[in-house]
Order: sequence, then structure tokens, then C-alpha cells
Amino acid sequence: MIQVGIIGGAGYTAGELIRILLNHAKAEIAFVQSSSNAGNPIDTVHRDLIGETSLNFVAEPDFEAVDVIFLCMGHGKSKEFIERNSIPDAVRIIDLSHDYRLKAEGNDFIYGLPELNREVIRSSRRIANPGCFATGIQLAVLPLAAAGVLENEVHVHAITGSTGAGQAPSRTSHFSWRNSNVSVYKAFQHQHLGEITQSFKQLQNSFDFAINFIPVRGNHTRGIFASVYTDFKGSLEEAKDLYKRYYADHPFVFVTDENPDVKQVVNTNKAVLHLEKHGDKLLILSVTDNLLKGASGQAVQNMNLLFGLDEKEGLNLKPVSF
Amino acid sequence: MIQVGIIGGAGYTAGELIRILLNHAKAEIAFVQSSSNAGNPIDTVHRDLIGETSLNFVAEPDFEAVDVIFLCMGHGKSKEFIERNSIPDAVRIIDLSHDYRLKAEGNDFIYGLPELNREVIRSSRRIANPGCFATGIQLAVLPLAAAGVLENEVHVHAITGSTGAGQAPSRTSHFSWRNSNVSVYKAFQHQHLGEITQSFKQLQNSFDFAINFIPVRGNHTRGIFASVYTDFKGSLEEAKDLYKRYYADHPFVFVTDENPDVKQVVNTNKAVLHLEKHGDKLLILSVTDNLLKGASGQAVQNMNLLFGLDEKEGLNLKPVSF
Amino acid sequence: MIQVGIIGGAGYTAGELIRILLNHAKAEIAFVQSSSNAGNPIDTVHRDLIGETSLNFVAEPDFEAVDVIFLCMGHGKSKEFIERNSIPDAVRIIDLSHDYRLKAEGNDFIYGLPELNREVIRSSRRIANPGCFATGIQLAVLPLAAAGVLENEVHVHAITGSTGAGQAPSRTSHFSWRNSNVSVYKAFQHQHLGEITQSFKQLQNSFDFAINFIPVRGNHTRGIFASVYTDFKGSLEEAKDLYKRYYADHPFVFVTDENPDVKQVVNTNKAVLHLEKHGDKLLILSVTDNLLKGASGQAVQNMNLLFGLDEKEGLNLKPVSF
Amino acid sequence: MIQVGIIGGAGYTAGELIRILLNHAKAEIAFVQSSSNAGNPIDTVHRDLIGETSLNFVAEPDFEAVDVIFLCMGHGKSKEFIERNSIPDAVRIIDLSHDYRLKAEGNDFIYGLPELNREVIRSSRRIANPGCFATGIQLAVLPLAAAGVLENEVHVHAITGSTGAGQAPSRTSHFSWRNSNVSVYKAFQHQHLGEITQSFKQLQNSFDFAINFIPVRGNHTRGIFASVYTDFKGSLEEAKDLYKRYYADHPFVFVTDENPDVKQVVNTNKAVLHLEKHGDKLLILSVTDNLLKGASGQAVQNMNLLFGLDEKEGLNLKPVSF
Repeated sequence: MIQVGIIGGAGYTAGELIRILLNHAKAEIAFVQSSSNAGNPIDTVHRDLIGETSLNFVAEPDFEAVDVIFLCMGHGKSKEFIERNSIPDAVRIIDLSHDYRLKAEGNDFIYGLPELNREVIRSSRRIANPGCFATGIQLAVLPLAAAGVLENEVHVHAITGSTGAGQAPSRTSHFSWRNSNVSVYKAFQHQHLGEITQSFKQLQNSFDFAINFIPVRGNHTRGIFASVYTDFKGSLEEAKDLYKRYYADHPFVFVTDENPDVKQVVNTNKAVLHLEKHGDKLLILSVTDNLLKGASGQAVQNMNLLFGLDEKEGLNLKPVSF
Repeated sequence: MIQVGIIGGAGYTAGELIRILLNHAKAEIAFVQSSSNAGNPIDTVHRDLIGETSLNFVAEPDFEAVDVIFLCMGHGKSKEFIERNSIPDAVRIIDLSHDYRLKAEGNDFIYGLPELNREVIRSSRRIANPGCFATGIQLAVLPLAAAGVLENEVHVHAITGSTGAGQAPSRTSHFSWRNSNVSVYKAFQHQHLGEITQSFKQLQNSFDFAINFIPVRGNHTRGIFASVYTDFKGSLEEAKDLYKRYYADHPFVFVTDENPDVKQVVNTNKAVLHLEKHGDKLLILSVTDNLLKGASGQAVQNMNLLFGLDEKEGLNLKPVSF
Repeated sequence: MIQVGIIGGAGYTAGELIRILLNHAKAEIAFVQSSSNAGNPIDTVHRDLIGETSLNFVAEPDFEAVDVIFLCMGHGKSKEFIERNSIPDAVRIIDLSHDYRLKAEGNDFIYGLPELNREVIRSSRRIANPGCFATGIQLAVLPLAAAGVLENEVHVHAITGSTGAGQAPSRTSHFSWRNSNVSVYKAFQHQHLGEITQSFKQLQNSFDFAINFIPVRGNHTRGIFASVYTDFKGSLEEAKDLYKRYYADHPFVFVTDENPDVKQVVNTNKAVLHLEKHGDKLLILSVTDNLLKGASGQAVQNMNLLFGLDEKEGLNLKPVSF
Repeated sequence: MIQVGIIGGAGYTAGELIRILLNHAKAEIAFVQSSSNAGNPIDTVHRDLIGETSLNFVAEPDFEAVDVIFLCMGHGKSKEFIERNSIPDAVRIIDLSHDYRLKAEGNDFIYGLPELNREVIRSSRRIANPGCFATGIQLAVLPLAAAGVLENEVHVHAITGSTGAGQAPSRTSHFSWRNSNVSVYKAFQHQHLGEITQSFKQLQNSFDFAINFIPVRGNHTRGIFASVYTDFKGSLEEAKDLYKRYYADHPFVFVTDENPDVKQVVNTNKAVLHLEKHGDKLLILSVTDNLLKGASGQAVQNMNLLFGLDEKEGLNLKPVSF
């Protein structure tokens, strides 16, 4: 059994990791660290886990006890944590923050989007798990970049659930404000644009266009609905063919002829894509669960790859559907 | 024009008062006090008021400028405020906290439920505006108490919207938690039981039964749906007759033969009641908007009574309905 | 008093008209026609109107009794109705369907967007009330067209509440499906594109660019949040200036420096616009209530103009805000 | 592998059964029958199942191919189906309708509440799966009945999600109506009262009190929150002890000291109970997922019992939590 440690265990993504790993046939949770909750039973924070675990949060990680750690702290804190701690080389690291997503000198983390980097992930030791918006948007565009046919600006509008913003209270996370409300934030400037652009260039070196990205706060809790369009010279059939070939052996991505909706994928690790051609534009609709394929599900998918397991191990999750 | 001052102007109930008073033909807002927002335009806090007012919050109330003040601070703070300030006798006070709702020596506030105390309100100077749950529940039961036919325990289950809990952030006000969720709080012990019991006894001195009250957090923002039942010897027709007579000249309370729902009254000052007889029990369903009939709408209704205006002045509000 | 008749009185837009007109100081509802509900009290269908009207639906309109009729039937049915009935010339008509929105030979209806056509509306007799999406999107772009500075494609993403789809049941209107869900429909092909393009050309004859419009089904009931961007050469300040001047004497449109949200305008006739400049793009966020500024509120605004009343008469509505 | 047939495969409960069974290690879906969808791929109806099954709905069941069938048709239709078809004796039947829940001459179905009848279920061939409300309410009260201490009326208020009402469209299932709304239906008369009373009497023959049950339509899709109270002479500790002993070896029922909420159990087969003592009343809060422990999860639990499997097989479901 793979022994797993989780750092920063009280947040949403850690909760999802625990939910998945408790039913993972090849992995076992060795410890869940949380400074603010050290000593408390895990199910007093993640209360739906009643009856599923008798573990308590620990204050200090025991690196000797684990094969892999997941870093679920806030952005900026993973780097601090790694610099402060002597983590044995044998311990693999999967970081869910954005600290290591962008290539830089001295950054030996691999960008953990399996649909982009699966082979190199398999032989890596340190993974920078992609952002939630970044995942949904990249999956909508990668086949075009891989074919080298991106030739103009990419227009993206993506609506996310409230869990994407974490559990810290704020004006916009208050139920009285957010219920039945819609708003936009960080238009054209969202921090995920960096990793998205980096991936597009990785596949199509010539990519040098704007990504016009409008992130929207939806009034649901889980799920990202991304609408993406860009110029595409070919026919709809050619586009579908491109996408189906690109994702042929990727078990979590589906190209559908039906009009998709977010609840198709909520509580699963799936991404569902739907293509339409309008004039010279290719429209790609992409739905994902921001906490699963957009975070913790993908992190487990990466763990499976790191340890030579079936990519889907532990990820055959019952959709909630309603 | 009646000159109005509002103390504690940044919260939900103050916002509703301002929304009502801006369109009130006989009253005018002289000032809105807010310590935390002094100097800021009112529409930077109550942002839907864009274009409707150019007033700024003030730090200090000017009692000389007003005929009436509404106290919209938290519970406990009204008493402090009144003790700390020299409010001229001529200034009427309508307090929205629970500080003065219970009769006590030295408390000269009148309990401001017009359907219970309209005549005495008309000749008063200080009003303790009822609680939101307390309003919905009392309206469901007052005709029975007035007829002296309460003769057993009263069972109450009432679901409230999130605005009932104010705007302070908390675990249970976080959208990610509250959306699609249901929970109970302060079962059998809610602080409104005192004022409810006091009113029942006022009408039926012999009332000495438990009120079994289960308050529920709903996943909507506005509106209280109260289900109330108790023993009743008469027929359904007799009960309806009792209720219709009791509320005959009260313009905001309606007894309907249709099955009611909360959205019938949202954004109005109405209370809709529906009666059913099952065995020896009379079931009364009561719907109200917790911020209007349950708070600020009722406060304006009380102001209208204090100043000899039509009880409905300023309260012909367009329902939102959806 | 202006005497008003409403045709097709059981739907959402008719309900809103009734809600507004019951409190309109200069207009009075003479009749509300509904084939399916003839004879029934209006408040058995629009149940929030309990206590506000004792009118019953009628089967047949009495054109002699009214100064103006509102047509609230489905698309395609207004034309049929007008052809089938002999409506006296003196009776003004405000049609809420899309039957007369596009200019065509023999179509003497004026497109009723006051922010585009106010003067000509004032002297007209027949008004084609704009579509809900069309209103929100046009208000976001009209100042640019008026300045003749539209010089490239316009990108539009707009999320609407469920009431935009009317009350007929369908798979996508079922609560179990739509709650917490997001989906897209009629991307690039929405029927409002015609009237939007027509208005842009009216102001800027040279306009000949695509409007890339992605309509989204949100999981709220009321309100449209439109994100619109296009190339703009000037600075943000120049853009704001353009917008503020364009809307200077239009009482329902506001340009704000704050980040807007849909609930700012729900249950009001307002449109709130917010501008940002990103690179060479001007982003305009536009929020409106699809049933009010996007339908019945605008219809009353048009009625006010037709009869020489204050444009805001009856439209100082209390926002629901939460 | 247990071969499973599902009759009436297009509805909500059938969808949930399929979701569970696709990941059940000891069972396999042989066919899913649906008259209205015969020939269509299952994932065109249950669209979240994209990529999980290539089965099509069939028009006619093949009883020879299966060990067990689940009947997921509407109430009244199971009886018709069983009378019309010659189902081999060897085929076990689990009926999700209310047709066989009440004991009657000639009814050889066992009432399939494992926490009441586990041993007899193990040796049965035909199971009447309990109703959703009935499950949540019985679990809240069974330990009291088993101890023979029910001695007065039982007061029940339970709020359910929209999926409890099935997928047929109706006024109260329309999103525009139901969103943010609350209402009551069938107060004191819900059809589940029969089976609840029957179970109470099974454990405590003397039970002869009213169950005052108010069912509430909530504005969420999944989950029942039941508040139950009745007289109880003992202390809170005695009550907890009673409950903990009763459920000691039942793997899906948990007694917690924390205040529960519906989302703790959504997308799981769990029931979470919480006890409070107020005066002479014992309050039991009970949360369940109406489609799982209240329907299809419990049906699989019953299947596991019928075939001698671990009761939890296939039911270690990832909670959705948000």
C-alpha cells in the first residue's frame, strides 16, 4: 500500500483527497497534518466522513512514514513549506498550489496535467497539480495546440462554483450575497493565464495570442462550465476527429455530441467536451468538477501515474447527478 | 415630512428601511449613522441603491434633526445606545433589537406588533419591534389566544432564510456550506420564545403550555415558513371564521384557502396564513418575509401608526415573486 | 387615468406588468385577458397578489375600455392576434413578443428601447418591446455605436435566470436538473441577435461585424449578467466619459466604478454598467432584471413615454437585494 | 457475479441504482428496461454516465438472465407488472414502490428496512423497499419503539429535496417556482404514515399514538432533514445509550453529538442521528439522502443481504459534501 501524507488537511481540497483515498484500493492515509486542527478527529472538520475514519489531525508530518505527500496549503505556502522542511528524496510530492506550476530555473516540478504530460509524470517525483480553471480551459484547447492550428485569440468565459474560492469567509462567499447572484472577477487577469499559456506554447511553440478570459462566480458550489472559442479553419467533423484522437486513450475526457451541463460531471473526475462550429469559429464547451478533475481528483490521478497504478484507481466515483 | 434617523445603518435591516423610506411619501431620511462606514456613500454598502440616494453615512446622529429614530444595531446594543445618549423626549424610537421586547420594570417600550397592540402603538413614543420568527409564529396563533381557546402545547417548526442571521460571516453563512443544505439551531430554546409567550398570555391569561419550537436554517435568503399546530375543538370553518374576524381590519394579514409558499410574500410586508384541520389538531401555515413583516417593514408600519398615517403608507411593495 | 388591457395574462411578463401597474399612480388595469384562466381571480395564478386586486381574468378583451394594450403572448402569437382582431386606432399597443422588433415593410412598430429611441417612442402608437438579452447587451454597447467606434467583433457572454424561458415545463426548467447547474443554449444563434445588430447599425451604419453571443442558463430565477468586450482605441477614462454622456439623462442606466452583480438590480428597472480596459479591449459588464428592464418594466417605461408621463412613473421599485 | 435487471430504468431511482451497480464488485447489470427509452443508450438519459456503460435500454426484460430485479416504476405499477409477468421463482424481487410495503393477506414481501428486519431479509426472496421519508423517520424512532418506551404522540417535521417527487414536471417542480421557496404538502396525511406506524407497532405492539407529520418541500435536490420529538422519561445519556446499542452493528447509521446537516450524508447511504433532551421531550434530528438510504442505496443494501454479501458492498460512496 502506498502511504500518503496530507499537509494542510482542513481545507476543501484536502477533504476531497481524504474522501477519495479512504476508498482507494492501493493507497492508505498515514497522516493528515493541520496546524489549526491538530489533535482533533478528522470527521469533526470534514463531517461527512463520520464513520469512515478514526484518524486525528497531526501537528507535524512524519515524512519517514510516507511514500508521497500532498500539499494542500494556500498559494505561496507550499514553497515556504518545502524550503523549511527536509523532505527525504524518496518522498514524492504533489503540490496543489500554484507555487511550482510555471517553469523557472531551479523548479524541478512537472506540470501535472496527465492529458498533456502523462509520460513524463510517470517518471517524475514532484508534481505541480494544475489550477481548476486552467484544467477545464486547457482540456478544451489542447488538441488544437497539439495540431498547431491555434491562429488567433482564444476567447474564454468560465463559471465556477463557490468551492473554487476556498473556505475563508468573504463578502462574496456569504450565502445571503452569493445565492442567486452572478458576478465577474479578475477579468483578463486571472492568475491561471500563465499556466494555460505555458501549456499552449509547449504544444504549439508559435502560440502568441491573447487569451481573453472572463472568470465568473456562479451560484453553485461545485463545477466549472467553460465556453471557449477561437478561429478554426476545418469542419466540425475535422475538429471532432482531432479531439477524439487526442483524447482516445485518456480515460477521463469525453467528447460528446449532446449539449453538456455541469452536473454531468459533479463529484467525478471527468471532463466532458462538446464542440460546435459557427462560421469560422470553433466553440468548445468544457465541464469539470473544480474540486476533482480541477484539483484533488487530478492529484490522485497523478499519484496513480507516479506509482505505476491504473490511472483510474480510486477514481470510479459515483456521480451525484442531482 | 417626518424626518427619520437610522442608527446602525450598514446591516440588513437598515438597508431595508432605507429601501422603503426612499419611496415613502410622508417620510424622509435625515441621516443614516454607521460607525464603521461613516463618510461613505450609502450606496457603496447597499449597492442596489445606486442612483437612489446621494446620502453618506454619518458618524454621529443629530437628534435635533429628526422626529423618529430606528435602532438597527445588534441585540444588546440598543440599550447601551439609549443609556449613553441623551435623546430628546420628542424623538420617537423604534428599536429593532430584542432589548425592550419583554415587559420589565422601567421598560416603557410598547411591543410593536400592530396585529396585537395597534391602538396602544398609536399613542406611544417608543416601540420594541418584534423578532422575525416571533412575528410569523404569533400571527399564526393570536386569534386562538384572543378567543381563549389555547388549551395544549403549541408545536412550531419554522424555516428561515439566511438574512435572518445577519451579515456577520460564520461557518453556517458560508455559501459552500449553506447552499442546498438544511440544519436546525436552538431547538426548543430560541430567544424569541419569551416574546411569543408574553403575547399569548396578554390575550389569554391562562396560557401556560409549552411552545415546542424548532427553528430551521433554510437554503434561501428571505422568508419564513412557519408550520404551527395545536389542539382545537371547533371545525375548520369555525377556525377560519375566527381568523378572518381577527384580521378583518389588519391590512397585511391574509387567510387563504390555497396552499401557501414563502415566495408569495417575499419582498412584501404581508403575512399569509392557511388553515387545515386534521383530527383534533388545527394546522396553521404562516409565511412572511423575515426582513419586512419580520423586521423593517413592520418597523415602518409602526412608524406609520405612531404618526397617524395610513398603516400601509410606503408599504405597497412590488413582490419579487420569483 | 390611463386604462390598460393585458392580453395573455397568465405568464411571467403579464404578472410583472400587473404587479407594477397596481401601484402606478397614473394607470389602471381595465382588464387582464387569459384564455386558459378566464373567469378565475388573478390572484389564483399570480398568487403573491393576494389582497391587491379583486379582478378576474376575462376571456375577451374590451378594446373600447382601454387606452393601451400590452401583448404578453408567446412569440408569433402577437401577429396573429393583431391580424385577427380589429383594434381601434386610438388604442396604443405595446408588444412584448419579438414579432415586430425587426424593421420590415408594413411594420409600423417602433423598437421600444428608450435609451435608443426615446423621442420617436414619445410620438408613436405601437411599440415592439425589446428582448431581455437584447436589452442588456445593447445597453452595454450603444454608446460605442453612437460614437461610431465599433470596429471589430463584439464578444458577448450572458447568463440569464430561469424566468427568461417562461413557465412552460421542460427538461431544463425542472428544479432537479437546473438547481446548481450551468449550461449553454443557442450559442452564436440566439434570436435576439437580429434586433441587436439592427440597433447597432441604426447608430453606426458601418457596423458589419460578428456578434459572438453565448447565452447561458444560470441557476437563479431573475437577472441577466452580460459580459461584453470589443476593441476600443481610447482610454478607460474616455470610455467612461462616452458612457456617462450617453446615459446622462436616462434615469435607469448607471455607470459604476464598482464591480457589479446581478442582485444589485433584481426587482428594479435599472441597468448597471461597469467598464474595464484590458489591453486594447474594452470590457463592459451589464446587469439587468430580465423581467423588468428586460421585459415588463421597460414596457411600462414605454407606456409612460407614449402618454407623456414621467419616464419613471410607477417604476421606483424596492430592490429585493437578497 | 449477481446478474441484475432493472425495470423502469429512466427515472431517478433507477439512475441511482445504475450508478451504484456499475461500481459494485459482486453484481453486474444484465439489462435495464424502459418502455419509453427502449433502444437508446443509457447515457443519453442518465447523462452523467457517459463513458461508464455502453448498455442500451431494452423494451422487454429477460428474466432468465438475472438473479434479481429491481422495480423502479411508479407507485401502483409494480403490482400490475408482477401480475402481468411470469417471473421465475428463482428471481428475487426488490420493489421500490409502495405497493407491497403494508402487510396484507397474500403479500409475501418483506419490508426492507435492514435496521428493522435484517435477519428476515437475509432469508427472503421479495423485498418491499421503504419510502424515503419513512426511512428517515423510522431510523429516528426505532430504538424507542424497540425499548417499548413510546408513550405519546410523535411529532415529525421533515424537509425533502426535489428528487423525492420524481422527474414528472409540475408546478412545484418548476425551477422558477421552487428555487428559494418553501412549502408544505399532505400535512398529517402523507402516504408513508402507514408503513411507519406498522414498523412502530412491530417493535412496540402497544403503539397507538398519532404521528403528526408535516412534509416540507425544500429548495434543494437531495436529502431529507427530519426533526422528530416525543416524550421520553429518561435522561439524554440514557437515550443516546439506547440509540447507540440499537445501531451498534448497523453500518450505515451514526449517532453524533454534533449538530447535523443534510449535506453530511448527500450521495452516501448513511443516516446520521443527533439527540437532544428538552424538558420531557427527546428531539431526534435525522439526515439521509432520499435517493440513497431513502431509495436506491437501501435497495442495494437489501440486495447485498439477500445474497449473503457484506451489507456495505458497493456502498462506500464518496460523499459530495458541497
